[in-house]
Amino acid sequence: MDRLWIDNAKDSPEAVVLIMAGGSGTRFWPLSRTQRPKQFLPLAAGGATLIQATARRFSGLRRKHTVVVVTAASQARLVAEQLPQASILAEPEPKNTAPCLAYAARLILERFGDVPVVAVPADHLIEQDDKLVEVFDSALDLADQDAILATIGIAPTGPETGFGYIKAGAVGKAGARAVEQFVEKPDRATAEEYLRSGNYLWNAGMFIWRPSVFLQAVKATLPELFPIVDKVGKEVINAERAGEVASQFKQITPISVDHGVMEKADNVVVFPGSGFSWSDVGSWDAWSEIASTRAGGPANVVGDNAFAVDSNGCMVSSEGGPLVALVGVEDLIVVSTKDAVLVCKKGDSQQVKKVIDLLRERGKTDLV
Amino acid sequence: MDRLWIDNAKDSPEAVVLIMAGGSGTRFWPLSRTQRPKQFLPLAAGGATLIQATARRFSGLRRKHTVVVVTAASQARLVAEQLPQASILAEPEPKNTAPCLAYAARLILERFGDVPVVAVPADHLIEQDDKLVEVFDSALDLADQDAILATIGIAPTGPETGFGYIKAGAVGKAGARAVEQFVEKPDRATAEEYLRSGNYLWNAGMFIWRPSVFLQAVKATLPELFPIVDKVGKEVINAERAGEVASQFKQITPISVDHGVMEKADNVVVFPGSGFSWSDVGSWDAWSEIASTRAGGPANVVGDNAFAVDSNGCMVSSEGGPLVALVGVEDLIVVSTKDAVLVCKKGDSQQVKKVIDLLRERGKTDLV
Repeated sequence: MDRLWIDNAKDSPEAVVLIMAGGSGTRFWPLSRTQRPKQFLPLAAGGATLIQATARRFSGLRRKHTVVVVTAASQARLVAEQLPQASILAEPEPKNTAPCLAYAARLILERFGDVPVVAVPADHLIEQDDKLVEVFDSALDLADQDAILATIGIAPTGPETGFGYIKAGAVGKAGARAVEQFVEKPDRATAEEYLRSGNYLWNAGMFIWRPSVFLQAVKATLPELFPIVDKVGKEVINAERAGEVASQFKQITPISVDHGVMEKADNVVVFPGSGFSWSDVGSWDAWSEIASTRAGGPANVVGDNAFAVDSNGCMVSSEGGPLVALVGVEDLIVVSTKDAVLVCKKGDSQQVKKVIDLLRERGKTDLV
Repeated sequence: MDRLWIDNAKDSPEAVVLIMAGGSGTRFWPLSRTQRPKQFLPLAAGGATLIQATARRFSGLRRKHTVVVVTAASQARLVAEQLPQASILAEPEPKNTAPCLAYAARLILERFGDVPVVAVPADHLIEQDDKLVEVFDSALDLADQDAILATIGIAPTGPETGFGYIKAGAVGKAGARAVEQFVEKPDRATAEEYLRSGNYLWNAGMFIWRPSVFLQAVKATLPELFPIVDKVGKEVINAERAGEVASQFKQITPISVDHGVMEKADNVVVFPGSGFSWSDVGSWDAWSEIASTRAGGPANVVGDNAFAVDSNGCMVSSEGGPLVALVGVEDLIVVSTKDAVLVCKKGDSQQVKKVIDLLRERGKTDLV
């Protein structure tokens, strides 16, 4: 693309919903491919893609808002197809979340002014999310008023070892709690301790702030990054400057917003969230559990384009691919697409990355 | 097709190889379909289809021969594609093997004279078949000379309950033995008894006779059938008579050559055959065992368009379909085609017929 900023915003909003859709990855191979990662797959209820469900989530927000999707330049076309009404900010290359959010903050400040922003990943699956939207409402109001960096912490429902945690401290305004510490993925024993303590929340990578407040924190914590994003976040509005933005981007050192900013800033608060189901759907196994729960039990989940004979506990994804017939099998994940079929034992879907390695080794890069 | 007889024979042969390719069936679904049954699938070594391997088998025959394929009218085009040099005799509708062989015998008598015929099914898989061709040579010589109905009996290699047996008696000319009895598929105990006795052979449905001798037997055993085939077998040579042949065919009562002729005739002999591998490849499981043996062991058999990660004992057929990746699975049969994928537990492939039933129930007849 020549343009890095596609402006579909209508009038001055009271908030910006910033959807981070830069993720790549092939953990949902063969449905996901390098150029079509998880956020663009129809894994949400009713056949919506994750990014569509993410945008839709905010329809109940109290503030009049506009949606901006920040994504890889190579994925801008997919975003435009799936969310035709969103504005799109493209990154010339991926530099992890701190540069991404700072780049977007500067653009938002330039284009929409210092309105509060809620920034969320495009590729999480959240259901029964009314309560979450209420939390966003409160957080946006507080961020509009105070110079805070707010995040959402999800009340753990089990001793998960796959997520980072946030240790929450004293309760402050609007139900927000001080953040005592961001902690890395724990081992099982530690996770159980966290669960018992009641003060640890899952770090879901959802943020609320005013762009000026976030940029101030970037200036303080990532002094090399700040001048670059301060420049490109303004320049990107001008289509003629896309080449310059791209060359500036090359100089950026990748770093996550957690490590780069949140862990160092002293104005961080966390809004505890609960009462909704949340998953980062990190594998076909995670997806299979969700689909099974959604279907109401552990029976086969096979959809319209598949069926099972004498089979149990299987999950099939075959929309758009060949019909799948299961005979006499148990606990399988089967995914059929036009050019590739995965047959995977439940519990082994992390090994799909070995398939990707093999495909690359054999030169079948068109299937990756 | 308008023509029921496609004549590709060059000069007067010393023998006719008659390939019976009228079988239908979907036991190899999704690779086989109603209009593309087993004989047209590439299940033979080197990617040949079963009918191609059947025709090729006779290249070492001592007698100069011509190949005639008798098939369903609806499959004549497939036969012409796969065996462009064979002559094709089409049956307007299937009437089982006695009418089929009598119709073909009358055509052969009319077109080639009373030369000996070897008639074999198109859909069996035979490997290391040099010894079998020698048996055919002997049988053709004897049939040329004597008024016999010869069949091939295969020396059992196990107590198979899936085949009919032939009880062989006294040894006569050229190694042929008298036939004491045709017996139905036995139970396990009986099959073991047969195996011990050494006098029972598998009935492989392969026959050798002169057409005049076979037609004589048909006249004696199936007096209603004889006048019809005597007429249509001549008329079919004339393309203008195809409609008449078809209407005559409607009057024929279906019956197998075993029940209708061989069990009643008194000039039946059996040539014992051994030293080659023979299978009627009745299911994906049977095919899987053959493929596994061919590959030299019980490992995964996956071909070029598939691979296996942490998987054991699986068999994949995916030529022409989407690539298949197996992850963490065991003892599966996976067949991928453009529009349908089968995932079946080894040992359960007889249940594929339930899939066909379900497809029909759901109106997905294009996949049957």
